[in-house]
Amino acid sequence: MKISLGGKPLIYPTPVFVIGTYDKNSKPNVMTASWSGICCSDPPCLAVSLRKATYTYGNVMEQKAFTVNVPSKKFIHETDYFGSVSGKKLDKLLATNLTAIKSELVNAPYIKEFPLTLECTVVHTFELGLHTQFVGEILDIKIENSCIDKDGRPALELVDPFVYAPGKGGYYGIGERLGSAYSIGDIFKRL
Amino acid sequence: MKISLGGKPLIYPTPVFVIGTYDKNSKPNVMTASWSGICCSDPPCLAVSLRKATYTYGNVMEQKAFTVNVPSKKFIHETDYFGSVSGKKLDKLLATNLTAIKSELVNAPYIKEFPLTLECTVVHTFELGLHTQFVGEILDIKIENSCIDKDGRPALELVDPFVYAPGKGGYYGIGERLGSAYSIGDIFKRL
Repeated sequence: MKISLGGKPLIYPTPVFVIGTYDKNSKPNVMTASWSGICCSDPPCLAVSLRKATYTYGNVMEQKAFTVNVPSKKFIHETDYFGSVSGKKLDKLLATNLTAIKSELVNAPYIKEFPLTLECTVVHTFELGLHTQFVGEILDIKIENSCIDKDGRPALELVDPFVYAPGKGGYYGIGERLGSAYSIGDIFKRL
Repeated sequence: MKISLGGKPLIYPTPVFVIGTYDKNSKPNVMTASWSGICCSDPPCLAVSLRKATYTYGNVMEQKAFTVNVPSKKFIHETDYFGSVSGKKLDKLLATNLTAIKSELVNAPYIKEFPLTLECTVVHTFELGLHTQFVGEILDIKIENSCIDKDGRPALELVDPFVYAPGKGGYYGIGERLGSAYSIGDIFKRL
């Protein structure tokens, strides 16, 4: 039997992405965000929602660009810290000894030590309420060589990301590969 | 060293949600979607992007409502099937022997056997390109009793969802709990 929880921002799972931006003085900042996801295939776009109170919000408004950095599980402490404090007064990268590098195509920094980065330019800004949703066109993806499998393709297993569960507020790793999309459900096509 | 993959809709991980809708004749349809995520905390909203070619797109345009159903891992075959065929000519629920139930608050069906459902009413429709993004306000969340932990809170472990990896197109389970958000990164606050 199902019970009602009321209307709230909760679903399982949500992603753990780190948004990289420059402020007006070109100081890099990073912030963890989970209200995010791919939102269009052509042009390829990702949406991320930010509260106006965040330093990253002002930076995205100023630069119209951001990066999305996917942390490996081994960076979970740094990633949690990036979501817990504001860059207004702190240098989060300095505190965690991670390295900001200027992106190739957009005016935003990426985190050198993280395995996967999307370079995004803002194409839409939607006011939704507490959060503003920025839609960024994905101009390029940069991935560590070590995250390419023997068939020459990027592999989730090698990036080793983790997810976030709203409500109880926990982080979880990714488990075993279960099967191939557009294939393992074919048993029902025969019915 | 990082290599460039070009601009494409790829990030790890993306969620696996099943969108429930009625057509104009009140026939229920379900479709798997991974271009989706929470996009606002207040009002609580979730965004899902759909191609105009899908049956679900027409249904959402008609009804201005949808449900988001989170499948447990044990429903991976049904979920893959829901993303592989169109409801225009098929009854996907009949084919998989799953049950559509009318939602309490919106004119959309949910899947009885899936553990977690969000009831959403469309508050924004954004044209992004190949995909149209529907922003739904989450009016209520319904969860199975069996997915509530001993502290009375919904638990990701008990919902047992899975994720999708674009590119290679694989499904993966969720792994072990790694720690608590806004807590395990506190080691850096002392620096």
